Amino acid sequence: MALCVPPHHGPPAPLLPTAGHGVGAASRHLHLGLLRPLAVPQRLLLGPGPSNVPPRILAAGGRQLLGHMHPEMLQVMDEIKAGIQYAFQTRNRLTLAVSGTGHCAMEAALLNLLERGDTVLVAVNGIWGQRAADIAGRLGADVRELQKPPGEYFSLRDIQEGLARHKPSVLFITHGESSTGVLQPLQGLGELCHRHGCLLLVDAVASLGGAPILMDQQEIDVLYSGSQKVLSAPPGSAPISFSERAREKMLRRKTKPPSFYLDMGWLANYWGCDDKPRMYHHTAPINSFLSLREGLAMLAELGLESSWERHRANCTLLCQGLRELGLELFVKEEAARLPTITTVRVPEGYAWQEITAFLMNEHGLEIAGGLGPSVGKVLRIGLMGYNSTKDNVDRVLGALRDALQRCRRSRL
Amino acid sequence: MALCVPPHHGPPAPLLPTAGHGVGAASRHLHLGLLRPLAVPQRLLLGPGPSNVPPRILAAGGRQLLGHMHPEMLQVMDEIKAGIQYAFQTRNRLTLAVSGTGHCAMEAALLNLLERGDTVLVAVNGIWGQRAADIAGRLGADVRELQKPPGEYFSLRDIQEGLARHKPSVLFITHGESSTGVLQPLQGLGELCHRHGCLLLVDAVASLGGAPILMDQQEIDVLYSGSQKVLSAPPGSAPISFSERAREKMLRRKTKPPSFYLDMGWLANYWGCDDKPRMYHHTAPINSFLSLREGLAMLAELGLESSWERHRANCTLLCQGLRELGLELFVKEEAARLPTITTVRVPEGYAWQEITAFLMNEHGLEIAGGLGPSVGKVLRIGLMGYNSTKDNVDRVLGALRDALQRCRRSRL
Repeated sequence: MALCVPPHHGPPAPLLPTAGHGVGAASRHLHLGLLRPLAVPQRLLLGPGPSNVPPRILAAGGRQLLGHMHPEMLQVMDEIKAGIQYAFQTRNRLTLAVSGTGHCAMEAALLNLLERGDTVLVAVNGIWGQRAADIAGRLGADVRELQKPPGEYFSLRDIQEGLARHKPSVLFITHGESSTGVLQPLQGLGELCHRHGCLLLVDAVASLGGAPILMDQQEIDVLYSGSQKVLSAPPGSAPISFSERAREKMLRRKTKPPSFYLDMGWLANYWGCDDKPRMYHHTAPINSFLSLREGLAMLAELGLESSWERHRANCTLLCQGLRELGLELFVKEEAARLPTITTVRVPEGYAWQEITAFLMNEHGLEIAGGLGPSVGKVLRIGLMGYNSTKDNVDRVLGALRDALQRCRRSRL
Repeated sequence: MALCVPPHHGPPAPLLPTAGHGVGAASRHLHLGLLRPLAVPQRLLLGPGPSNVPPRILAAGGRQLLGHMHPEMLQVMDEIKAGIQYAFQTRNRLTLAVSGTGHCAMEAALLNLLERGDTVLVAVNGIWGQRAADIAGRLGADVRELQKPPGEYFSLRDIQEGLARHKPSVLFITHGESSTGVLQPLQGLGELCHRHGCLLLVDAVASLGGAPILMDQQEIDVLYSGSQKVLSAPPGSAPISFSERAREKMLRRKTKPPSFYLDMGWLANYWGCDDKPRMYHHTAPINSFLSLREGLAMLAELGLESSWERHRANCTLLCQGLRELGLELFVKEEAARLPTITTVRVPEGYAWQEITAFLMNEHGLEIAGGLGPSVGKVLRIGLMGYNSTKDNVDRVLGALRDALQRCRRSRL
């Protein structure tokens, strides 16, 4: 049997000259980047995520494996659950981390809550609403959209009109719209939804730990986030929690959710959120869970209120500095600015790509352009978790000052 | 605003005594395991996976993050693709890693291939066929099953009869049945399926790198595996590849797949498997990808044939030793034994739980009981990747000898 490795886009290169099952010397015949040592440059990640990971969390993720059913691992999962309950400010028993990134949690929320034909109202003022509407459509739901231009948020009146008109069973809304830098006010929303017999589903991927969110008090039915923003753990696991109302809707399903991997009935059991003995469901991403545990522990040690205050203070400093550089903040109303990700308009006479490339190449520092409806309009600067420091505010402002001098009169 | 942390199953414990957004001292009020230092005991993982992770791969997973769209990360992804093409022995352009564990790849395969009403034939001789049938049912497919008792495999004649009778568009079969220790012969299967106008989908989570699998030569249309078995990387990413035939079926879909996260059209673009510029799709699990890259590099350096031979040799040694201990191998036919995971019948006069607990507690060593249809019938011993060594064969045999002396005449 002749083995081969295909190079990327070229003719097939024979890998092993021998046939049969004899011991070959593959490496002598491989000419691939794969066989060079792994190179990972050091970068300051001040985009919309992932954030840099503190040494303590990196160390946790680099620990030797445990089995996914070992008692110590189940204990770590219990601790993650307690950490999420704290971060979300909830007593929901059905609280756990899904084995994927933030997007995976969005899908887990939608595919467990919705059945074919259910009406879902999606508040769209940026990319996350667009994505949720896309996913809900794939699930066969009757998707209605409530639109706002990028940079704006939804008032209680907007929502009330939408609920009255569309009579949805679920409302999807984004707390921290990372594509536009908008913080959606949540106060009163849960109560309003419940008066209309509707469940409230909130995306807090970019906001959790950076701005107040009180799941129980605000009557949020499903809340999810990611590991790689304020929690400063690598991407790969995503906290999620369901209220009793949401759990009841899931129990009333007539059909199984279209995923086994994300089936909340199975996950609830594996995470010890029901009264049955915990059973094997899937091989969990052990190291991602170890990292997430440390991220949640660090948030609990710091305290939620301190974390909110730190993000608010550093965001205020950043906004002040950006204005001093002559830049215009994209979100006008101060209270509507997401404290974790700040958006400024791309200044006239500049190409956004040249600014982000300059920062990356000359300063080893990432900031991002827009995403979805904000592409070409904004630059996005993230100060999240471990990266939310006064030093980083100074560093990104200094780099931007440099870029504004050096990238002027773009050719684009 | 009063914040609180609920303890697990007790009365609510107030976390922060203050109201408002003032800086609190959360940690003084938290009484949770979460606030104790993370403890990860050292274990030799000789169950059906995950395997222990070699220092080089752990170090890669503990590197500082890059952005998911940074050129260096895209380069790492290209290297992963080349590594998977080598490990799978394929030239398929649509080759990538999904952002989840092996189960997630099973779902990615099924939900991209199948549409509602498609007929799928699932070969069930252990838990993985059962799971695939469950998932296909959730997707609205017309699921037909071909059954064999645990411990047996399917002959070409079995499959031919099934194809003729059910006329499926997809056949699912498991190469390495980790719940029973069976290795499914693949030779001739792809050709047979294609003569019947059917695509061949193979689960190689437990076998990849441990037993020969030649995707292109064996005409396999969809093949997937996991990171945490022979590749010896932490769970959290899963290699998958699609043939041109499979790609064409996906292109003919009338409906979008019911997942955005796992939509192969989007993933193909993010992984540079089409001709369009690579676009943001989701935040990838960066560190899992760094680990997977190293796992694939180590397999390429060793060479596939050496890896197969190493697994075969250590499995043979293990089987010999198990027989010398008086234990009975569950899979009779030598050629049908999975070289990565060996199953023995639970010996008479013993409770399997006492044996696995004794090995864990007295020897810091994991082996497993059965799973699904093999529960209570077998013990499962894995020797995969980094863990497939003569030393580990000696260690597990010594520990089992000890257990057989100490756990006899069980009370169960």
